[in-house]
Amino acid sequence: MNRVLRFGMVGGGEGALIGDIHARGATFDRKSALVAGCFSRDAAKSEITARKWGIDSDRVYATYREMAEKEAAREDRIDYVSIVTPNNSHYDIAKTFLEHGFHVVCDKPLTVELAEAEELKRIAEQNGLLFCVTYTYSGYPMVKQAREMVQRGEIGDIITVMAEYPQEWVLHASKLSWRMDPSQGKSCCVADIGVHIAHTVSYITGLRIDSLCADMLSHGPLMELDNNANMMVKYTSGATGMYWCSQVAAGSRNGLKIRLFGTKGSLEWQHDRYEELQLALSGKPLQLLARGRDPMFPAAAAFNRLPGGHPEGLYEAFANIYAAFGAELSGILDGSGSGAAADYPRIDDGIDGVRFIDKCLESSQGGVKWVPYS
Amino acid sequence: MNRVLRFGMVGGGEGALIGDIHARGATFDRKSALVAGCFSRDAAKSEITARKWGIDSDRVYATYREMAEKEAAREDRIDYVSIVTPNNSHYDIAKTFLEHGFHVVCDKPLTVELAEAEELKRIAEQNGLLFCVTYTYSGYPMVKQAREMVQRGEIGDIITVMAEYPQEWVLHASKLSWRMDPSQGKSCCVADIGVHIAHTVSYITGLRIDSLCADMLSHGPLMELDNNANMMVKYTSGATGMYWCSQVAAGSRNGLKIRLFGTKGSLEWQHDRYEELQLALSGKPLQLLARGRDPMFPAAAAFNRLPGGHPEGLYEAFANIYAAFGAELSGILDGSGSGAAADYPRIDDGIDGVRFIDKCLESSQGGVKWVPYS
Amino acid sequence: MNRVLRFGMVGGGEGALIGDIHARGATFDRKSALVAGCFSRDAAKSEITARKWGIDSDRVYATYREMAEKEAAREDRIDYVSIVTPNNSHYDIAKTFLEHGFHVVCDKPLTVELAEAEELKRIAEQNGLLFCVTYTYSGYPMVKQAREMVQRGEIGDIITVMAEYPQEWVLHASKLSWRMDPSQGKSCCVADIGVHIAHTVSYITGLRIDSLCADMLSHGPLMELDNNANMMVKYTSGATGMYWCSQVAAGSRNGLKIRLFGTKGSLEWQHDRYEELQLALSGKPLQLLARGRDPMFPAAAAFNRLPGGHPEGLYEAFANIYAAFGAELSGILDGSGSGAAADYPRIDDGIDGVRFIDKCLESSQGGVKWVPYS
Amino acid sequence: MNRVLRFGMVGGGEGALIGDIHARGATFDRKSALVAGCFSRDAAKSEITARKWGIDSDRVYATYREMAEKEAAREDRIDYVSIVTPNNSHYDIAKTFLEHGFHVVCDKPLTVELAEAEELKRIAEQNGLLFCVTYTYSGYPMVKQAREMVQRGEIGDIITVMAEYPQEWVLHASKLSWRMDPSQGKSCCVADIGVHIAHTVSYITGLRIDSLCADMLSHGPLMELDNNANMMVKYTSGATGMYWCSQVAAGSRNGLKIRLFGTKGSLEWQHDRYEELQLALSGKPLQLLARGRDPMFPAAAAFNRLPGGHPEGLYEAFANIYAAFGAELSGILDGSGSGAAADYPRIDDGIDGVRFIDKCLESSQGGVKWVPYS
Repeated sequence: MNRVLRFGMVGGGEGALIGDIHARGATFDRKSALVAGCFSRDAAKSEITARKWGIDSDRVYATYREMAEKEAAREDRIDYVSIVTPNNSHYDIAKTFLEHGFHVVCDKPLTVELAEAEELKRIAEQNGLLFCVTYTYSGYPMVKQAREMVQRGEIGDIITVMAEYPQEWVLHASKLSWRMDPSQGKSCCVADIGVHIAHTVSYITGLRIDSLCADMLSHGPLMELDNNANMMVKYTSGATGMYWCSQVAAGSRNGLKIRLFGTKGSLEWQHDRYEELQLALSGKPLQLLARGRDPMFPAAAAFNRLPGGHPEGLYEAFANIYAAFGAELSGILDGSGSGAAADYPRIDDGIDGVRFIDKCLESSQGGVKWVPYS
Repeated sequence: MNRVLRFGMVGGGEGALIGDIHARGATFDRKSALVAGCFSRDAAKSEITARKWGIDSDRVYATYREMAEKEAAREDRIDYVSIVTPNNSHYDIAKTFLEHGFHVVCDKPLTVELAEAEELKRIAEQNGLLFCVTYTYSGYPMVKQAREMVQRGEIGDIITVMAEYPQEWVLHASKLSWRMDPSQGKSCCVADIGVHIAHTVSYITGLRIDSLCADMLSHGPLMELDNNANMMVKYTSGATGMYWCSQVAAGSRNGLKIRLFGTKGSLEWQHDRYEELQLALSGKPLQLLARGRDPMFPAAAAFNRLPGGHPEGLYEAFANIYAAFGAELSGILDGSGSGAAADYPRIDDGIDGVRFIDKCLESSQGGVKWVPYS
Repeated sequence: MNRVLRFGMVGGGEGALIGDIHARGATFDRKSALVAGCFSRDAAKSEITARKWGIDSDRVYATYREMAEKEAAREDRIDYVSIVTPNNSHYDIAKTFLEHGFHVVCDKPLTVELAEAEELKRIAEQNGLLFCVTYTYSGYPMVKQAREMVQRGEIGDIITVMAEYPQEWVLHASKLSWRMDPSQGKSCCVADIGVHIAHTVSYITGLRIDSLCADMLSHGPLMELDNNANMMVKYTSGATGMYWCSQVAAGSRNGLKIRLFGTKGSLEWQHDRYEELQLALSGKPLQLLARGRDPMFPAAAAFNRLPGGHPEGLYEAFANIYAAFGAELSGILDGSGSGAAADYPRIDDGIDGVRFIDKCLESSQGGVKWVPYS
Repeated sequence: MNRVLRFGMVGGGEGALIGDIHARGATFDRKSALVAGCFSRDAAKSEITARKWGIDSDRVYATYREMAEKEAAREDRIDYVSIVTPNNSHYDIAKTFLEHGFHVVCDKPLTVELAEAEELKRIAEQNGLLFCVTYTYSGYPMVKQAREMVQRGEIGDIITVMAEYPQEWVLHASKLSWRMDPSQGKSCCVADIGVHIAHTVSYITGLRIDSLCADMLSHGPLMELDNNANMMVKYTSGATGMYWCSQVAAGSRNGLKIRLFGTKGSLEWQHDRYEELQLALSGKPLQLLARGRDPMFPAAAAFNRLPGGHPEGLYEAFANIYAAFGAELSGILDGSGSGAAADYPRIDDGIDGVRFIDKCLESSQGGVKWVPYS
């Protein structure tokens, strides 16, 4: 299909970081156009965003409900909606758009309650609608390359996983943000970044958690919710892992790092060096694999735009998620079925994230005890 | 001015890397729209690009001359043209568009002959037209930060400059590309990447070359033009420097690296870690400054889109050049004069690049002797 | 005292790595001389070592018991003994020498059984004898510098500790070594390298473990004892930590790494970059502190031999431990008391290590449950 | 031969850094013993050193001449002398000991005048005496490994060499040291560290300089001699190189770095990561080779004492030079001839260093012009 996909956005008003990232990412390859939106409860902010994107004023909506209804009635209706609001509103918004027949892209974590996430899945399936949950890091080509390598057995069976995601912003925070607000969610750190660890590990390795033991901690005067969590996991394969996420780790900007140790070798990806992989095969020297320079498997190379040594960044990682989602959606809309099984995170990944948060809370609130994962 | 700038492109047909980078960069912030083009001599390729960018078929032109003439006659004519063709065509194309009253953005190196570059300057000035030459690396925020730091004296007076730009692609080349073809230019390596060293050093430090000594070398079976050059320079300030560029440096993807050693400290930026600066102030520990994390001067911070730890890459560096150029152009078009003296590389930088190539050739062909720079 | 200390060694016969390291370390500063030994049960091996060190043949002993007895009877008797045998013999040997009135240096882990370690302490105290346990990593000057910085509050109160010690040698092992042999010990990985994590963290921070949860695992065909352990700890201060040690981590030579995250900043030392510290103070750029280049506290600087940029390695770390032990011992022997409270690991550190192993075993064998530490 | 070699030292009195390094290095493996010396003109300092090394008082000499004469008359005379005095005294001292029949180890640079160096060679050859010049960096096992790899063709024919040795100490110097004093030498920076670049490159690659162009510069108030030098070289093979040495490079402790770019790959060794090599073979990922972990050629592996991950440092590099020299000397003394052609820097390397300094001076003082090297 050559038609450019039309999408609308809920959230992302002027000044909102993540909404702007989604909008640029979705349109990066000129295969989606942002044509409608309910960007903010503040009409002025919504207007600024609409103007920036050249959106007709009759497609700028005061409420997401109005947007869903009116778009559903248009002949040139949007093909999908992107939901980039705070977490506790995802459920209502997503449900509304699904019920009006729209495919959905939603930021993570998917919902606050596990039952909500599962209900969204049910509705999406009933209506035959796609549902993408934007776990950013799975959009990086070298994360995809890692997945290919691991799943083809290059490092053998995984023995242990060391994964972490430290940040430092809460150390410097002077007032509560919505992320830290217990009235808006049950977890801050695990919900915001712990889920990225869980997803990225799962995405690369395919490992399923069997049980976990999580110590969620809160440091500093502002905190009621967790801003640091230590976690041990056991996978169903018998492998084990340790996860650490923190928002009070001085010096850490955004340090997602995944290290996988297998029977034949180890593999490391870290966000600080996101265009590289470090590979240590047993009995061979350490190797540094660079995006665009060294051979990549087709499933990863397909997401390269620039040759080696020319960095692509976060916007491009988002663009990759939207590209895969868009490819599948186009194949549905034109009836060709091309793009089926495209590589983007789906509603099951969203549900897994909410379950991960729930299990961490259950473990931590029970005195940091092991909890089974099923 | 809120109007989106309209621009056309010469070159950049389907499959052309640099044209696509320009197009994405120019439109990244939704302040320029690509509305016309003469993308390729191959009409089919030109058509693919036009369709991708949603360009009306009557604005897809067979020749750049036709494009200049017909666009000049339109009421909704383009505001500027981007020239992304091989180097030896820059002069004719730029001259044509300047003569038809269009502002110009042109890739580097500006021209093959110095006299051509100087003539373009004369025409642009006579017609009151802006002329931007896209030296990529000056678009990175941390390069701008380095410039601010150096020019404010943070590392004192510069003693010596160590700058290099190694690549490896010629080692692996199996046939001549236009870059290597002596019928299309006088230099391969210095013209392609040596000029980036010269510009980035000049941009950060303001140092002017007084004399240089260059050894341009050609290795391997395919080469008639240089693919490796060793250079020593003396600046008018009394400082000295060593430059090295190479296209036969195994293991080097795209390794531009600038190290500045001053009386109070040293500063290092390298493309492999483009979001960082390494600062060594006398008597203090080494510091690693990270984009978006550590304080930046306003002139550099203005080009940040994402907070620290969220990488922006090459497309964004191009977007920064276009953003500054576009800001100045908008101020001219709306009569406000806002954006004057914006931070982007101009025609004088383009002329400097061509002179640098000429001086290297003069030195090298004269038996690697020192040549004065004025 | 200017007299060179005389010492003997048990273990360390030709081909033994650790004994040679002890011997070179002890004599590195010409303040101890190796004059007696029972280096091996293999008389030929023992002889080679004796000859290398210029030891009189009447001071080369067939058994450690003979050595203790005969040395005790000499006028020029050794001042101390170094015990560098496999772990399960430490107790008997150390006890014997203590009972004959010799000061002792012993490799880690101190003993197999906690009660044995505690008994050694009792005997040493009763006899007024020094007892040093050679935890290598506390001998590095930058580890000492880290200790000074932390204990002076430079990074504030510690929130969380991330510490690890991965190696890879068991992956490549083709037969059981004594370390892996369940008849010679209760733990392989935790006993060999886990104790280094516990000691180095304790040494730098002074944190005391309150409870821990350890998952000791065994991978591969050869193993009965642990070769990988994941551990969570809670300290009495309320801080938490995660420890990981492994001997099956492909690509890891000897990767002890300690990261400390405090309320004012973080500090990182890793053995791969053992002459540096990475310091991230809140609101300041990352700093890389280099041994001999950047200011060090006197208690750390006292152990520098070479200026910055001239690396000292493992032998010198051992030399530092022996230097401190020797200084205290000399002060005792000459009656001056100088060198008291010198900075070297003592028997309490040795006991702590054995307790750490025991607690990990108790936790792991109990189904990976939290166990209190007192 | 099992006899321990006896040696004496000229220079190296209490407080002298380099003498202590030599003494520890020479005795590190217990194959040489320091038994005589003329350590300082200051008798008290000389005495302290003598006592530290347990030297009989009748072998502590007031002048080197007395030492040469009296040692020559002893039955247990020293086998060789180590000369660790300031550069401008090397010639007289070495000549004296050679004339008394002693083998010599001398620090670099060998002499101030080229003719002096050549005369020392003549005398040594006439007397059949060994002469070692201690270029430190050739003692590191990974430098030896690099040599083996290059000379076996692993990176093909060398195209270009990038080598540098920046330090920063002169930036912080408040008074003249002997190194900077024009009455004691003709060069500071090139003589002290430039020669290490020249030797290390020559040692690894075997390349011979055909011509060079050097710009020797002096920055700051204290300087009359050079403290920064930029150099271009052409080798007889047709390869080229750039060398840079500096003592005013803020942030650089002791940054010798050698990068070799060949037709099949590139290889990098840097002192800051002295236990590693970075290898980039064409068409393969970057590899990091680690001492003791990855395969080494026998000629390099022979100098390993510790396994991978256990760092050996500067003392051990010196020990390696003395070990090779001592092996050859022992083979001569016992008549076996074993150890012939051992791997240590010889008088020809010393002569080359003095010539390198001379050629740099000739080039620089001639207006930075190319000078032929023969």
